Amino acid sequence: MNDADENPLLTRKGEIGLVRYQDFDYDDPFTFEDGQTIPGFRLRYETYGRLNKKRDNTVLICHALSGDHHCAGVYSIRDRKPGWWNNMIGPGKPIDTERFFVVCSNCLGGCQGSTGPASINRETGKPYNLDFPFVTIGDMVRAQKLLMDHLEIPELHAVVGGSMGGMQVLQWAIEYPSYVRRIIPLATTSRHGAQSIAFNEVGRQAIIQDPEWRGGNYDPEAGPKVGLAIARMMAHITYLSDKGMERKFGRRRRDGGDINFSFDVDFEVERYLRYQGQSFINRFDANTYLYFTRALDYFDLPATYGSLEAAFRDVSAIALVIGFTSDWLFPPEQNREIVHALLRQRKHATYAEVPMDFGHDSFLVDAPNLYRLIMAFLWEQ
Amino acid sequence: MNDADENPLLTRKGEIGLVRYQDFDYDDPFTFEDGQTIPGFRLRYETYGRLNKKRDNTVLICHALSGDHHCAGVYSIRDRKPGWWNNMIGPGKPIDTERFFVVCSNCLGGCQGSTGPASINRETGKPYNLDFPFVTIGDMVRAQKLLMDHLEIPELHAVVGGSMGGMQVLQWAIEYPSYVRRIIPLATTSRHGAQSIAFNEVGRQAIIQDPEWRGGNYDPEAGPKVGLAIARMMAHITYLSDKGMERKFGRRRRDGGDINFSFDVDFEVERYLRYQGQSFINRFDANTYLYFTRALDYFDLPATYGSLEAAFRDVSAIALVIGFTSDWLFPPEQNREIVHALLRQRKHATYAEVPMDFGHDSFLVDAPNLYRLIMAFLWEQ
Repeated sequence: MNDADENPLLTRKGEIGLVRYQDFDYDDPFTFEDGQTIPGFRLRYETYGRLNKKRDNTVLICHALSGDHHCAGVYSIRDRKPGWWNNMIGPGKPIDTERFFVVCSNCLGGCQGSTGPASINRETGKPYNLDFPFVTIGDMVRAQKLLMDHLEIPELHAVVGGSMGGMQVLQWAIEYPSYVRRIIPLATTSRHGAQSIAFNEVGRQAIIQDPEWRGGNYDPEAGPKVGLAIARMMAHITYLSDKGMERKFGRRRRDGGDINFSFDVDFEVERYLRYQGQSFINRFDANTYLYFTRALDYFDLPATYGSLEAAFRDVSAIALVIGFTSDWLFPPEQNREIVHALLRQRKHATYAEVPMDFGHDSFLVDAPNLYRLIMAFLWEQ
Repeated sequence: MNDADENPLLTRKGEIGLVRYQDFDYDDPFTFEDGQTIPGFRLRYETYGRLNKKRDNTVLICHALSGDHHCAGVYSIRDRKPGWWNNMIGPGKPIDTERFFVVCSNCLGGCQGSTGPASINRETGKPYNLDFPFVTIGDMVRAQKLLMDHLEIPELHAVVGGSMGGMQVLQWAIEYPSYVRRIIPLATTSRHGAQSIAFNEVGRQAIIQDPEWRGGNYDPEAGPKVGLAIARMMAHITYLSDKGMERKFGRRRRDGGDINFSFDVDFEVERYLRYQGQSFINRFDANTYLYFTRALDYFDLPATYGSLEAAFRDVSAIALVIGFTSDWLFPPEQNREIVHALLRQRKHATYAEVPMDFGHDSFLVDAPNLYRLIMAFLWEQ
């Protein structure tokens, strides 16, 4: 029996199996919303399934703050950790790769292969670091559109994403109205509110005030690991829910016994959070964290377009907006508002509020009722 | 016109005016729940109003994590910042100093004059730092009881406090049932849950991982100021509410203009949070922050006594428990649970849920409907 036999992610029916990423290099100048221009950029992306002859079966996936282009499948026969939305994407899954051509790219400004602050500035031969332009949700989407053009995709069957991904989904429908037929924004908002800005600011301060940040010019191997871990630990709490954490951890002790009277890990939830912080610093760039949180903060459709209704004036996509009852970062109301504004503009839009206890991260969780909603909406003629 | 004329906190009718603190030195050994003993301790405290002849009119105030003994009045004619509950305590106010003798002490383990980790260990001549015993809510209350004995107070008319103060209030009623006639715990819990432990852990890690923490042995003038500020900024968000922050700050820019594309303060809420962090580090000790957050984490009446009902078995105080609709740190349910357990034990208990948008900190806010509840309960025969 070889490794491949043992890896259910390769052999199990309905799994997408081995995947690989590709790079799209755009070699013309690209100007950001902040007015700055870079001479070109790279987007790292993956595709699953096949583009049909009519080239009308593409589903674009947009990732959240800490996500990337690798949303399904595994990279090798030994790889036991599939892409971040592997439960949603694959043959026979809600986003069915037997029917759809699925594309996902690491956002512009990212740190998983796409051009971002850690990339080399061709003009200086050094990393951009804080010289990288401020990237907005709009910039991310315009870069993705250039990738779609490169792939010669004339229209999108759907754009789907949660959280920061959901913001991109909305931006797609607004910016390229005739290009997008369906949108599914999940657990998102049309306007980043005060509490969310506040949490982001604490995370940024944890990074910026870490002496290892060095004004953003840290050694890629070192960097503000303490600050980034703190930022991630805190943010991770905001992705869960009180009820979900209570059920998963409660006050369970790490060692199962009595309290230890210690500042070391005493409760299981502490061990879990520290693990989240530590694993994050091994895969994520601190400056990208700063840039992406700012992209979230600056997202405000009502202000940008005058009102949310005005933002949606030209939208032609039909919309399924999904909120989660236990999401307190982008709570149901904020998702409902999106649908209400679409409906006031006489668009085809519907809202589903899914009762799940996993908080903001509910959109990532294995949940048949969520799958059925998405599958039905994507397949409907 | 002199300064005193200009200071409304001195001249306005109904203000308590000038106050001063006192110190209670307990010179016998005191053993903590963790088994460690210190040779004695100091509690800094304040009193307002007069003890009546029957010595039965004392209202004890218990403070929250970042509070102290100075809960009413001002220290000098130039002092424009009164104690933290000055709106609640004073002549004619809900906790009426014309009727009640009000006492509040800085908790054991604190950093505002009471013995805590920054105090000198008589046996070594150096600060305790992490050699200070772990202090529990029970330890805080037993130390307060020694102060009550010192003041020759034979019984308490009431014990009142919010958040960590509310935990002490519950502990008082349980530990000294025949001594306490009324309790008013506000915005509190009988059992610190997973989410609250998680937020505390992030704050502790921000402090402990700050290189200036130096294993707890920092210079009192230096110390982990960055980590403590981060901890405070994060915690401060948990004391507010989404709705309250939205109304107070929304997405208002600091300079009133467009976004600046900057990691400096761009939104007003960022300026506010940074200010909260900076002002905290000037008045609070990082090690006390570690100890007090652990005291919160370790508070679990159901586990300590077998069940919440068992914890309340011998309580004879009548109880008014107050929860706030927008408090998501210790939400209404957790306050309601306390009353339900008291009622199941056939105690006199009632619950008031006050609709306020200020989150956990609602108990500190100027609110006539809250005042009326407290005043009526304290005055009732």
